Amino acid sequence: MKTNSSPILLFVFSLGVCHSTFALWPIPRSLQTGSTLVKLSSGFDIQVNGISKVPQDLQDAISRTKTRLRSDKHQRLVVGRGATDSAALTHAPSLSKLTLSLTPSAGGTVNPIMQEATKDIAKRTESYSLTLPSSNGGIATITASSSLGLFRGLTTFEQLWYDDSTGVTYTYQAPVTITNDSPAFPYRGFMLDTSRNFFAVSDIKRTLDAMSMVKMSQFHWHVTDSQSFPLTVPGFPELAQKGAYSTQEIYSSADVQDIVTYAGTRGIDVLVEIDTPGHTAIISTSHPEHIACAQATPWESFANEPPAGQLRLASAATTNFTASLITSIAKTLPSTLFSTGGDELNVNCYTQDSQTQTDLKASGKTLEQALDTFTQATHGALKAIGKTPVVWEEMALEHNVTLSNQTVVMVWISSQNAAAVAAKGLRLVHGPSDFFYLDCGAGEWIGNDPTANSWCDPFKSWQKAYTFDPLANLTAKEIPLVLGGEQLLWAEQSSPQNLDSIVWPRAAASAEIFWTGAKLPDGSAVNVLSALPRLHDLRFRMVQRGINAIALQPQWCALRDGACNID
Amino acid sequence: MKTNSSPILLFVFSLGVCHSTFALWPIPRSLQTGSTLVKLSSGFDIQVNGISKVPQDLQDAISRTKTRLRSDKHQRLVVGRGATDSAALTHAPSLSKLTLSLTPSAGGTVNPIMQEATKDIAKRTESYSLTLPSSNGGIATITASSSLGLFRGLTTFEQLWYDDSTGVTYTYQAPVTITNDSPAFPYRGFMLDTSRNFFAVSDIKRTLDAMSMVKMSQFHWHVTDSQSFPLTVPGFPELAQKGAYSTQEIYSSADVQDIVTYAGTRGIDVLVEIDTPGHTAIISTSHPEHIACAQATPWESFANEPPAGQLRLASAATTNFTASLITSIAKTLPSTLFSTGGDELNVNCYTQDSQTQTDLKASGKTLEQALDTFTQATHGALKAIGKTPVVWEEMALEHNVTLSNQTVVMVWISSQNAAAVAAKGLRLVHGPSDFFYLDCGAGEWIGNDPTANSWCDPFKSWQKAYTFDPLANLTAKEIPLVLGGEQLLWAEQSSPQNLDSIVWPRAAASAEIFWTGAKLPDGSAVNVLSALPRLHDLRFRMVQRGINAIALQPQWCALRDGACNID
Repeated sequence: MKTNSSPILLFVFSLGVCHSTFALWPIPRSLQTGSTLVKLSSGFDIQVNGISKVPQDLQDAISRTKTRLRSDKHQRLVVGRGATDSAALTHAPSLSKLTLSLTPSAGGTVNPIMQEATKDIAKRTESYSLTLPSSNGGIATITASSSLGLFRGLTTFEQLWYDDSTGVTYTYQAPVTITNDSPAFPYRGFMLDTSRNFFAVSDIKRTLDAMSMVKMSQFHWHVTDSQSFPLTVPGFPELAQKGAYSTQEIYSSADVQDIVTYAGTRGIDVLVEIDTPGHTAIISTSHPEHIACAQATPWESFANEPPAGQLRLASAATTNFTASLITSIAKTLPSTLFSTGGDELNVNCYTQDSQTQTDLKASGKTLEQALDTFTQATHGALKAIGKTPVVWEEMALEHNVTLSNQTVVMVWISSQNAAAVAAKGLRLVHGPSDFFYLDCGAGEWIGNDPTANSWCDPFKSWQKAYTFDPLANLTAKEIPLVLGGEQLLWAEQSSPQNLDSIVWPRAAASAEIFWTGAKLPDGSAVNVLSALPRLHDLRFRMVQRGINAIALQPQWCALRDGACNID
Repeated sequence: MKTNSSPILLFVFSLGVCHSTFALWPIPRSLQTGSTLVKLSSGFDIQVNGISKVPQDLQDAISRTKTRLRSDKHQRLVVGRGATDSAALTHAPSLSKLTLSLTPSAGGTVNPIMQEATKDIAKRTESYSLTLPSSNGGIATITASSSLGLFRGLTTFEQLWYDDSTGVTYTYQAPVTITNDSPAFPYRGFMLDTSRNFFAVSDIKRTLDAMSMVKMSQFHWHVTDSQSFPLTVPGFPELAQKGAYSTQEIYSSADVQDIVTYAGTRGIDVLVEIDTPGHTAIISTSHPEHIACAQATPWESFANEPPAGQLRLASAATTNFTASLITSIAKTLPSTLFSTGGDELNVNCYTQDSQTQTDLKASGKTLEQALDTFTQATHGALKAIGKTPVVWEEMALEHNVTLSNQTVVMVWISSQNAAAVAAKGLRLVHGPSDFFYLDCGAGEWIGNDPTANSWCDPFKSWQKAYTFDPLANLTAKEIPLVLGGEQLLWAEQSSPQNLDSIVWPRAAASAEIFWTGAKLPDGSAVNVLSALPRLHDLRFRMVQRGINAIALQPQWCALRDGACNID
């Protein structure tokens, strides 16, 4: 039964505020918009101008964009979800076509996206311009000087469109002009650890899809660690056969090629890491001769986490084995970058290892000198096949190791350490645990203290990541050393079951910081309040595409920009 | 190329420790096991003895168990995943049959599981006994005095079995004897908020599946709140029509019946909550006459979170409306429990509301007196249709409201408040934010302080939940007032995308605390170290069944009980 009391009219505040800019993510560095509704014509097509032979991966990217413009059913995040747009859309101008053009005209020679995306990180061209007119029957344009730039433009184009629930695909802020949008930093990454727990190829591909949506350029694949060795390395099949969790939890050589191709054709370079000389305990299952303190107990005396075990860096045989191992996999990969790791070396492991002590005595070297020899050997082998070594920060800051000035250093222990790396004249990527570690704050997984929290508590929210300043404490001369940054997922407490939800949309925070830089297109500083409605939009778009990105707020707030702020 | 250095044999510690008990969760209160491998015969069947008419839901439960015994492919969590069992299984005895029997023999009159599960919480019978022999061609038995007890026994039975990867289903600790396993507390629950963000019926059913796996008895459905009203209430269709996020985000009356039936037939009673008089802002979209301070700003002056808005508790019309509303939905539900909420009442909202002030003046009542009248009306209406009211702790501890001694009080603000509730002679359910709030620790969702954490930081790990003591600070006389407890998911930052991963296996912690009680079957105290390998097992079983429960540790640790502890 319904109570029929007389309605008494009340003041009810309307908190539905129109977004002032499109919900683009990352927001272009230049952006002009109007206020005209334009719908996608039923015959809408995408054409490439002035290229005699369109690379297959660009053709495929165009096909995917066309499919998504039809299949994405994302409605505007406003009260009513844009239902009031439908009437106006009846007579709204239609966009008939999108043309892609290379400038300067490339004639017949255009590299595939993958070739551009996997170039030396200093030499990639991602810039594009985009126009979308408000005239009926108009033609939108994307111009760029590379297929990768055209691809970035297509990614932006996809984010301009909404569904009105009656099947009309439309944009609401035409005309749109984006001029020479290009990234502030070339390295915009995400790191996944596939050793602590295994992730299927399909999980990685879905992650690459999400990365591509936010124009990320670099997938850092921390593929092996002490717990499992899921990678088939040509010439070293025994490593995965004995070191993977199971025969089903191995990346075959075909899987690796599948992943790097999937990534490359989506504008993403894959930086594979074989962490050495620490974080290698599992190699003892196939090569006990190369591992010191293998599974020694108590593990906490020999390693930062169980199981203990490190490559015998003072052994010539182990050094040769390692150099051979990493070049064997590196030479199958398109990327010029390859990481040899180098974090968390445990000295006690070597002090207690009689063979290492014998090797050191025989060579007359200290452990640090032996580490230098080991590093020269592995890095030298990489350089010999045209690869640039990447290392964790300890190799630059804590050890007495000679690193070539092309080496890329990953800063992870603290954001405060970036300046010290730059002061050494080394290129760096920001991956600070105090801003970018996605695994922090889920409780302690190790030990038996029930009330313990994770070592890097608290949880690093997207807001926290978004406030990161890539140039903090750096001199003008050091700024060019910053390649970019990445958010990271260490997988001790993660698995395919929570991959999407722990990563997305949080990892989009750094994607914008490193693409857009410090300023929004209107010249104001990037800030979480103006980012929030756009990040909501991105999250809803990701869900449309099967990526399980989580809600950032109650939907009530997502539909009312500003209504859930506090002063 | 593979380096052919001579292998040097090393000490490698074997850390694979056999589990001392089956990985049952919750672990039965009595359990005896042997060490014989027994496989499931190919003709294995489940039969019911001595019941002329087996209730349909028990028949369905038996069918599900039979299907799962074939479809679950869960291998033992030991190094090698039990591959070494396969040889021994060739000649292992087979189990031919499982018989279910009611004691005392029920003749032809057996209630359905659902009828037993939705009884008054003090009157449910969940006890069962189970035997599994080690003889070839043997017959396992489950006996109980109710269909619900038989169902709990089936749930235990399913957890005894593993897959050997060649298709053999086997158990490895026969014979098994469980005598009169029964819960320490009748209320073992999980609460889901479906207002801040919407969850589809399929999400709720999957959650009920997981709850049933750990013998939970109570789904607390916080269905509405200030942000959205996704529930179709008979006679009040306008509430959902105007208060749901969209027409797709509404639970129809058929959906509600579907959910309570799905739950009931799986041993779970559904406690629906319509939170009143606070947490009701969204009702203003259809009934502005009943809501004070609707969407008033700044919201933080009027509510704990946006939007502000509370039922005009001093209004007779609003009181009648509320009583009518809650009885209209409550009478469609099988449960005897119904929650009227009662948390976080904001006094300023009423102070600023001229109608409330007018109503108070007219009646000569204080706000507290009006709240008492309002509560008597809503609780009286519930009692008149045979329902027992449930309230949040503030109604017992912070307000001057008369509550009948049958009222169930949910303790949430702090675990320290349970004793005060018990001291008032009121029955209570533990849902303390400091142990059981699953949403804590994911960063602040509100406001514009980028570095802020959630109000109930840190994350409540499973270990933390598992150390909860239901009887802390209670006298012997007060102990019977404890009905049990529940872990809770408030959904401001949750959605279907992370439902499974934020809840499971964490919420299983309280399921065991409230079933098994303080002691393990061997008499030792429950503790996280002995729980961990069993919880790993449960998590892997959940993943087998499509529940995205997350990894608790690297798989390396999951396969090596004890190897990842620290001293």
